[in-house]
Amino acid sequence: MTSKKGNSKNKKSNSKSTHSLHLNNMSTLRITRRAADRLLSGHLWIYRTDLEAIEVEPAPGSLVTVTDARNQQLGTALYSSASKIAARLVSRTPELSREQYLSDIRTRIEAALQLRRELAPVNEENNAHRLLFSEADNLPGILADRYNDLVILQLLSQGTAQDDVRQTVVAALRAGLAPNGEPLTLWERPDPRIREMEKLEAPAPGPLFSATDSPATTTQFTLNGLRFGYDVGAGQKTGAFLDQRLNYAAAAAQVRASGRTGRALDVCTYHGGFALHLAQVCERVTGVDASRTALEVADQNLALNPQLKAETDWIEADAFELLSAYDTQHERFDAIVLDPPAFAKSKRAAEGALRGYKELNLRALRMLSAGGTLITNSCSHHVSLEDFTGIIASAAADAGRRVQLIETRAAAPDHPEVLTLPETRYLKCLICRVD
Amino acid sequence: MTSKKGNSKNKKSNSKSTHSLHLNNMSTLRITRRAADRLLSGHLWIYRTDLEAIEVEPAPGSLVTVTDARNQQLGTALYSSASKIAARLVSRTPELSREQYLSDIRTRIEAALQLRRELAPVNEENNAHRLLFSEADNLPGILADRYNDLVILQLLSQGTAQDDVRQTVVAALRAGLAPNGEPLTLWERPDPRIREMEKLEAPAPGPLFSATDSPATTTQFTLNGLRFGYDVGAGQKTGAFLDQRLNYAAAAAQVRASGRTGRALDVCTYHGGFALHLAQVCERVTGVDASRTALEVADQNLALNPQLKAETDWIEADAFELLSAYDTQHERFDAIVLDPPAFAKSKRAAEGALRGYKELNLRALRMLSAGGTLITNSCSHHVSLEDFTGIIASAAADAGRRVQLIETRAAAPDHPEVLTLPETRYLKCLICRVD
Repeated sequence: MTSKKGNSKNKKSNSKSTHSLHLNNMSTLRITRRAADRLLSGHLWIYRTDLEAIEVEPAPGSLVTVTDARNQQLGTALYSSASKIAARLVSRTPELSREQYLSDIRTRIEAALQLRRELAPVNEENNAHRLLFSEADNLPGILADRYNDLVILQLLSQGTAQDDVRQTVVAALRAGLAPNGEPLTLWERPDPRIREMEKLEAPAPGPLFSATDSPATTTQFTLNGLRFGYDVGAGQKTGAFLDQRLNYAAAAAQVRASGRTGRALDVCTYHGGFALHLAQVCERVTGVDASRTALEVADQNLALNPQLKAETDWIEADAFELLSAYDTQHERFDAIVLDPPAFAKSKRAAEGALRGYKELNLRALRMLSAGGTLITNSCSHHVSLEDFTGIIASAAADAGRRVQLIETRAAAPDHPEVLTLPETRYLKCLICRVD
Repeated sequence: MTSKKGNSKNKKSNSKSTHSLHLNNMSTLRITRRAADRLLSGHLWIYRTDLEAIEVEPAPGSLVTVTDARNQQLGTALYSSASKIAARLVSRTPELSREQYLSDIRTRIEAALQLRRELAPVNEENNAHRLLFSEADNLPGILADRYNDLVILQLLSQGTAQDDVRQTVVAALRAGLAPNGEPLTLWERPDPRIREMEKLEAPAPGPLFSATDSPATTTQFTLNGLRFGYDVGAGQKTGAFLDQRLNYAAAAAQVRASGRTGRALDVCTYHGGFALHLAQVCERVTGVDASRTALEVADQNLALNPQLKAETDWIEADAFELLSAYDTQHERFDAIVLDPPAFAKSKRAAEGALRGYKELNLRALRMLSAGGTLITNSCSHHVSLEDFTGIIASAAADAGRRVQLIETRAAAPDHPEVLTLPETRYLKCLICRVD
């Protein structure tokens, strides 16, 4: 068994001495009263605009002590020189040592893995889920997803994209997931957008850990008994959207219960998540996506599930254009899924996003057969459940359809929300019966 | 088989001739532009303050045609002379005849029963659910719950507490639920508060229908495999709170998953719904309620389930006082359920309600063991999910506890929400893991 670790190749190998310096002479961030109140109410973020005064700017990614305007110490945070979020609190203890920070990471990873054992146990039906979810697991800047025997790590901030953090996370994941040398390969897969924002260096090539000499870059994983392919070099985010796992199953269950199981449409199908689940209950399924590459994966995923007998086709198209054309052609469907990407990446963009949701949902409602099912999603944190529900209600009124909301769903529990961190609440999935 | 129908004894037996009069000379309600917009956006309610002019006040409970300020006809509504909601739209067709209204009721009851067959099928595990839910089933003023072989009907408005509606509903429920003479007894059970508000007469004694000469007034029903007693003459609403059915099961599942299964507390336990479900997974369960009568039923329900081995006790106490005392005594629990009655019966009362929720939840959070579960509920429509979540977050901050929201739940799908009728959205059940 060969253990390969990226750290030996990483350029920041002098990080240890830098940290000792911080420990002896930790920088202090003084923040506004409003920001201090936010931290006291359980939040973890300090925006750059919250900073009162910096005499010497802390080193990028270093641990800093946070104080309020009266110099009362509030805790220790990881500083970023590049992000709008200038620091993320990692402890309520001020002047936390680097060693203690790494020890906290170990403890919190153990708790996060325990939560998954409880809420998303690995079994024959499901072997993919989110293991570590950044702030939601009290691990700001650290994210990991499991796809069967592959674990994909993302270190998303200057403070966490460092060798000692990387080593600590890898060791804790190995100890928790493969204590007896179970087959496991760990890859780091940086998010290009965040890497640019945080001005992070590219991680070293090669896996962080592999149980074999020829580490796998592909695997197959199972969601609700359906098989999906995984390729560490392809797709968005860590590869798939595991937060929809239980919503896939709930959508199929409701369509089955509705008895309207003829023709289904999955808009923004990506790798076919909803489409394949609907193919379990419907006669015909059409998956739509703007990305040809994504649809090729969807089609491969379909082939992995020969038990699915539905007539299934994939259409490369813009969601708005296709729905508009279908509407004009008076197409009819018994079930429609709308799962567009986050329209609103910021608070300011939310209004435009609502217009987009309105149009898509209005078109979908017009095309649904009586008694049909609408499964409509939003993954924008900046669009609240209340606003989203209001938009669907408004689309229902315009379409002249009576819509019963059967289930309001969120991300699967391996993507927990933290009550005092509203940003951890983002996915909304409404399952509706349309008269 | 004797069929007993209340109508033959009812004092309003001359209602038919009254209705003919309406048909020939239907009153008109002219409403404000704002109210018209509300109806056009899918709502069904017309408040008294929405009325522009009434030349002759319509007869209580009569069908009236609704027009906007420019005399454009918007549909037909049931008029109430007593309620703040002056009329409830029953059809988008104006000048709807009485016959057509009754025919619409039949069709909508069929649709409502079909929805329950799909979403809440009767089986060995579950044989109690809401059959008809007023506006949520497009049946304003008509509500029915099933408890095994007993069906409890509530006619909640002047327009529906009438003989012809009663007969139509009974016939449609019989046809849908007992097409082959299956054992079924139908009782009417008016809501005293609403009866007073709408100035309704008491219904005739005796069942609306019974398959036997000695109609049952009690039965046993099953929720998630647990047995509960039912008495047509006891309890609140129609007797139980069936909207919590799936939340009971989800709460028990989460407590089991948490591994913290020692001591559980169910505050406002009523007939022991949450308590009995937690007794499946916990070692000790305490149910608290201010009503001794309710606790007696809870204890009887416990006795119906001898398979439950938890040490269970019932405490008659005010929720606020007990939680305060427990908190002072440093009591510790692994799971706490808070399911208080609707604190906010009106928009104005919402602020006080939030204070009440805050206090209860703060106390509960302080008493939960690390890794424990909080199941916290609000059934006030006037307290939004967003506000309620915010209150729990604020309590978490004050208690210094990190709270992961594992599931946000609502009423079971036999209590559907209608998107364009926000008032049909009321129950919020948050299942939280407390660090």
